[in-house]
Amino acid sequence: MSIKGVDINADCGESFGRWTLGNDEALFDYLSSANLACGFHAGDPLTMKKSVKLAKAKGVAIGAHPGFPDLAGFGRRIMMASPDEVYSDVLYQIAALKGFLAVEGIPLHHVKPHGALHHKAVADKETSLAIAHAVKDAGDDVPLVALGAEGGRLQIEAANEVGVKLVLEAFPERAYIASGKLAPRTMEGSSIHDPLEAAERALQMVVDGKIPAIDGGEVEIQAETLCIHGDNPHAVTIAKAIQAKLEQEDIRIQAF
Amino acid sequence: MSIKGVDINADCGESFGRWTLGNDEALFDYLSSANLACGFHAGDPLTMKKSVKLAKAKGVAIGAHPGFPDLAGFGRRIMMASPDEVYSDVLYQIAALKGFLAVEGIPLHHVKPHGALHHKAVADKETSLAIAHAVKDAGDDVPLVALGAEGGRLQIEAANEVGVKLVLEAFPERAYIASGKLAPRTMEGSSIHDPLEAAERALQMVVDGKIPAIDGGEVEIQAETLCIHGDNPHAVTIAKAIQAKLEQEDIRIQAF
Amino acid sequence: MSIKGVDINADCGESFGRWTLGNDEALFDYLSSANLACGFHAGDPLTMKKSVKLAKAKGVAIGAHPGFPDLAGFGRRIMMASPDEVYSDVLYQIAALKGFLAVEGIPLHHVKPHGALHHKAVADKETSLAIAHAVKDAGDDVPLVALGAEGGRLQIEAANEVGVKLVLEAFPERAYIASGKLAPRTMEGSSIHDPLEAAERALQMVVDGKIPAIDGGEVEIQAETLCIHGDNPHAVTIAKAIQAKLEQEDIRIQAF
Amino acid sequence: MSIKGVDINADCGESFGRWTLGNDEALFDYLSSANLACGFHAGDPLTMKKSVKLAKAKGVAIGAHPGFPDLAGFGRRIMMASPDEVYSDVLYQIAALKGFLAVEGIPLHHVKPHGALHHKAVADKETSLAIAHAVKDAGDDVPLVALGAEGGRLQIEAANEVGVKLVLEAFPERAYIASGKLAPRTMEGSSIHDPLEAAERALQMVVDGKIPAIDGGEVEIQAETLCIHGDNPHAVTIAKAIQAKLEQEDIRIQAF
Repeated sequence: MSIKGVDINADCGESFGRWTLGNDEALFDYLSSANLACGFHAGDPLTMKKSVKLAKAKGVAIGAHPGFPDLAGFGRRIMMASPDEVYSDVLYQIAALKGFLAVEGIPLHHVKPHGALHHKAVADKETSLAIAHAVKDAGDDVPLVALGAEGGRLQIEAANEVGVKLVLEAFPERAYIASGKLAPRTMEGSSIHDPLEAAERALQMVVDGKIPAIDGGEVEIQAETLCIHGDNPHAVTIAKAIQAKLEQEDIRIQAF
Repeated sequence: MSIKGVDINADCGESFGRWTLGNDEALFDYLSSANLACGFHAGDPLTMKKSVKLAKAKGVAIGAHPGFPDLAGFGRRIMMASPDEVYSDVLYQIAALKGFLAVEGIPLHHVKPHGALHHKAVADKETSLAIAHAVKDAGDDVPLVALGAEGGRLQIEAANEVGVKLVLEAFPERAYIASGKLAPRTMEGSSIHDPLEAAERALQMVVDGKIPAIDGGEVEIQAETLCIHGDNPHAVTIAKAIQAKLEQEDIRIQAF
Repeated sequence: MSIKGVDINADCGESFGRWTLGNDEALFDYLSSANLACGFHAGDPLTMKKSVKLAKAKGVAIGAHPGFPDLAGFGRRIMMASPDEVYSDVLYQIAALKGFLAVEGIPLHHVKPHGALHHKAVADKETSLAIAHAVKDAGDDVPLVALGAEGGRLQIEAANEVGVKLVLEAFPERAYIASGKLAPRTMEGSSIHDPLEAAERALQMVVDGKIPAIDGGEVEIQAETLCIHGDNPHAVTIAKAIQAKLEQEDIRIQAF
Repeated sequence: MSIKGVDINADCGESFGRWTLGNDEALFDYLSSANLACGFHAGDPLTMKKSVKLAKAKGVAIGAHPGFPDLAGFGRRIMMASPDEVYSDVLYQIAALKGFLAVEGIPLHHVKPHGALHHKAVADKETSLAIAHAVKDAGDDVPLVALGAEGGRLQIEAANEVGVKLVLEAFPERAYIASGKLAPRTMEGSSIHDPLEAAERALQMVVDGKIPAIDGGEVEIQAETLCIHGDNPHAVTIAKAIQAKLEQEDIRIQAF
């Protein structure tokens, strides 16, 4: 099989009021799509407005990045929200972002749950279903980003049951465990800091469809989009290295 | 001139999480349109979802009721937000509500700023312009509700300059001062508590187009919609009295 | 053994800004102590100020009722906060309440974690330790309220390890399961609505030190304080029935 | 008159959750006192805990820096809060900070209102009185920082009426207008960016007790403490220049 292209995405628009996070302006040069925070874990409305304009100017496709309503925890603390609460919170955030996209005349490209909302979806089918229903009800048939490995099974099942399109994601700068989940951040070696190593892993994921697990064995990976962590201080360097590596193999970086 | 109909609106959907405010279910029977809180001063996403369903079931037209981001102050404290912040906050809230409306297949009917955001708009042209731009950019050519008296001049000018449709509003249960503004709530007699008096004033506003000012003289009123305060414990009784009075004069209660 | 007295507590001060919850004024007549919300799940600063004054006027001892920072969820959704976050959030809330108590010249009586923070403490020793450390560091040697049954073991161990005094609590209007935990609210029969039945159970808890489990067998109970749910619409009736029943047996209602 | 010493303060502890602001660690080397955010405009509880420890380790005296409840606006938007709300919010924030100070065994050094709360106090006697009452009721007889120029008259009067000690402040990196207020940030030249110029002005303020106004004439200044803006990217350089200049004149930097 000859791979023609892959998407590179990152979480962006994560500033809030007086506080700046990440360097979206520089990072956008190496991304094909961006997940923009929608006000609940980061990204106040004025930040959203500016982030949409910047992504548009840089030709980056824009996805919604809904999170738990937890500014102090940056949406990284799992909250035992009911499916009905998750559905409503996610629909609210997607719809709010679409308001800013419509002003710029650009469509919503995808939806990708943030941080702890992603983790809860991976672990809990009800949460995955609630998110899938919100994405479907938000309209325009946009795809939902899910973990492209055994660990993402509940998300994938939920999207299929609800009738939502999927885009499968891989994390070149994160280690996987043999069960097909991301290695917890508390595990030694869970994050890859070397840009060249991350780039090498990106290539393996895209071309071979598998990588070694941190705890032995191999993990099968489906990588339609590769995620870079935008709040990582080395995000730009890593994105640049991945892009260079992939283009060297004639794999084009392009939004899915 | 023969008056055929007038709208009766109230602020609704103002519960938040565990807290309930108002009795929307009962009040909806006497309203033709409802202004639903959008999460910033009241109305979390799950409340919005439920309020939209309830209003639809009761045949009440739904408007967006954006407010300042101030839960503790219920959006009743003026905040010196910049026009750019006001624009973004209002667009965000309208768009979020539209997400819930789209699921139910109903259109947004109007936008009416809440509490202190309304008061700031009345007093400050820049704020009125920011709100008008947000309403315009939210699309679908929905009208903006403005004070139908001399006090609403800045709002009306702003909407006209931006090219946003207007609906003019009167407050039968609130006293006006001669300059055409609402009497401040701290002024003795600023609120009318007697349902029959409120109904009588509603009729005067709609038919005569003027009412006596609390400080002498008369105020000219344009009343395309009449506002009842949904968090008033007597809201249902007052709405009922106004409806009865108007229908007795063959004036139909209907959304504008 | 002859029982001389028992405390009756309820969660109070749970209004927030424009929203009112519970009827503290009426309920205070039947309580010996009150757990006041501290701003994170309910109870803005002005509400705290008023609640402290009211409790003082009614002679009710005042405890701090810290919760997760989750207004929309009323602190009833478990959040995966780190022990360091829990410690800081709890210390912050206790200290803030003490500010209002000092103005009135009354001491802090106890600390009782609210809702999901309580549930996380019951299930997780690290959380229980973080809370115990915060209570200790808040000073004045005030006791921590813990579940007076096998289900409260982790809380009790943590308090003992940290050197914090304990007060053991029982819930006359809630069913217990045989493992010594409260029956989940989703279980049929988990809440007792009949005031007389709640009163009868209160007496059993205090005098016999055990009650039947909802799923068979008996649960041993240590009841130094009895909890009434202040946001229950029947709270006043239940508190009254319990007080009457206990006083009939010469058991005095008094703060621990 | 021979000046022996002056305090240099800055707003610190203004990070929030995942977001970092300022470089407290470096800046603390040039300060004698720090105003720590208390959770309402910045400074979540865990940040407060860490900031208190860091300031203590660096030997910097710690003041409370209460602000409006406005994270998105960083407390820089005036809110029309009632005096009762201001009192309660300020007392709450001071008391919460004192909780963290007590753990470290250090006293509260002063209270300085943040941003828009300061500006509202300068313009509105009722707000100044509410703040002064909160400072008094927080106990320990700590001083309130007020603008040491004609512009601070209402703050000074309020503190004197309530019986709260005052510390008068000057802003070497901000221009003043002839009426004795700070030049609005929107005015050309309102901020001084050159460290040497700021240092020169600091010396004038401390030694001469007056500086030229930006709009002509002179402003009388009382400078017991000099304020550096901690979120200014050049804060450390400016603080260093001021310290060097003052020490060259044998004026010691020391907490008041």
